[in-house]
Amino acid sequence: MITSRANPKVKQVIQWQAKAKERKSAGIFLAEGFKMYQEAPEEDIREVYVSEGAAEKAKRQPAIWEKLSRTGYETVAEDLFSRMSDTQAPQGILCVVSRPEYSLDQLLRAEKPLLMVLENLQDPGNLGTIIRTGEGAGITGVIMNRDTVDVYNPKTIRATMGSVYRVPFVCEDDLQETVKRLRVSGIRTYAAHLGGDKNYDELSYGGGTAFMIGNEGNGLSEGLSALADGYLRIPMEGQVESLNASVAAALLMYEARRQRKQGV
Amino acid sequence: MITSRANPKVKQVIQWQAKAKERKSAGIFLAEGFKMYQEAPEEDIREVYVSEGAAEKAKRQPAIWEKLSRTGYETVAEDLFSRMSDTQAPQGILCVVSRPEYSLDQLLRAEKPLLMVLENLQDPGNLGTIIRTGEGAGITGVIMNRDTVDVYNPKTIRATMGSVYRVPFVCEDDLQETVKRLRVSGIRTYAAHLGGDKNYDELSYGGGTAFMIGNEGNGLSEGLSALADGYLRIPMEGQVESLNASVAAALLMYEARRQRKQGV
Repeated sequence: MITSRANPKVKQVIQWQAKAKERKSAGIFLAEGFKMYQEAPEEDIREVYVSEGAAEKAKRQPAIWEKLSRTGYETVAEDLFSRMSDTQAPQGILCVVSRPEYSLDQLLRAEKPLLMVLENLQDPGNLGTIIRTGEGAGITGVIMNRDTVDVYNPKTIRATMGSVYRVPFVCEDDLQETVKRLRVSGIRTYAAHLGGDKNYDELSYGGGTAFMIGNEGNGLSEGLSALADGYLRIPMEGQVESLNASVAAALLMYEARRQRKQGV
Repeated sequence: MITSRANPKVKQVIQWQAKAKERKSAGIFLAEGFKMYQEAPEEDIREVYVSEGAAEKAKRQPAIWEKLSRTGYETVAEDLFSRMSDTQAPQGILCVVSRPEYSLDQLLRAEKPLLMVLENLQDPGNLGTIIRTGEGAGITGVIMNRDTVDVYNPKTIRATMGSVYRVPFVCEDDLQETVKRLRVSGIRTYAAHLGGDKNYDELSYGGGTAFMIGNEGNGLSEGLSALADGYLRIPMEGQVESLNASVAAALLMYEARRQRKQGV
């Protein structure tokens, strides 16, 4: 059992928690909690750390216990695990996972792509929630620019509830160029926009579709909005000026899902 | 200008930020930021604090500046304001607002009530987002039990983006009793449930409707679910087991809105 904070692996994990750059150069991300461990693709798991208490719990959960025996793990003293964890009430299991590699080409090869294009999204919870809801709605991928919050931020990972393992995503340098490629590929692009002229449920998303969602405070940039094939708005009662980004995304993605199921 | 931390008003605000009980016994809540100040009902504003820097900014915003001249305010030294604030990057304006008083009777008197019933919701961001989205969708009120996170938690207030001033809400001791009253009043109650037998868009919400949403981790209690008139599910692709509570609520509320607008 690891008990010392001087242990090089422990030091490394603490550094990874704090520094996005270090995680990136190592090509990994950190995933915490039983659900995130259980859903992690086995071939991508590089290291597993389990607190003493969590190891006891794990013995009573056959699926977890068998997976641990296959992936291997290191037991860590309880208080030391708290230091390695990003959460206030750690579940006691943390794994180091290889980053998946997706390409834009891959995303474009889907049969009827349903894509989210995220520009400058800042809240890790919003990004994670969009990925989670997106899997539920059946999207085929997420495209972000580099000023969008790190998808491998521990808070983002947690908010995905495991969907980060299954929804393909790419991070692009130039979203305007990317959106032009989408259009050339026959994907219709829609900007959620306060000045949109149609309600979101009055447009048709049966074919290849991409929804563009902008920054929480400022919305989409003009440059990107200008490339949209259509402008949609989500109607709002009362004095509401905008919806939370992950809520707006959810309404759009589920409307697309509804239409596709009905064969609209 | 207030410059000392020993100032009794400053001490009081710091205590209010930290202690829900103190806020409650004073019958107030704290709202931060220009938007929250601007949308606060003037008659409910008891005290206003503005940092030196924000006071300069306010002078260039006529609507804010005129409101400040009517409500009055105290200028606070910049670093002292940071201590009074609950946020990491304070906008420099904070107001003490009287709590509104709503009753269940009032909520039941709406013409075709559209209510959210929240049981043991724990995340302040989720609660605030439900209130914000709820105003947008045109709900007529929110009913919570006492184990739901404090609606006056600064994080909840912030997430409402001002909707807390306009969406009526009540906190009830016994949600089961409350739901029985809803049913007696002719309001149909729906539980979002993994075992639901109908998709959420296959049920009709044209009449008085209440959606019950449970705790983020555990869902609705059996006791409360058992009282529902109908069980609905939100269909999910992939391996998603549930959606974020505020996302699920948004889909239900906007489906109700859609139907009501179409006169379904």
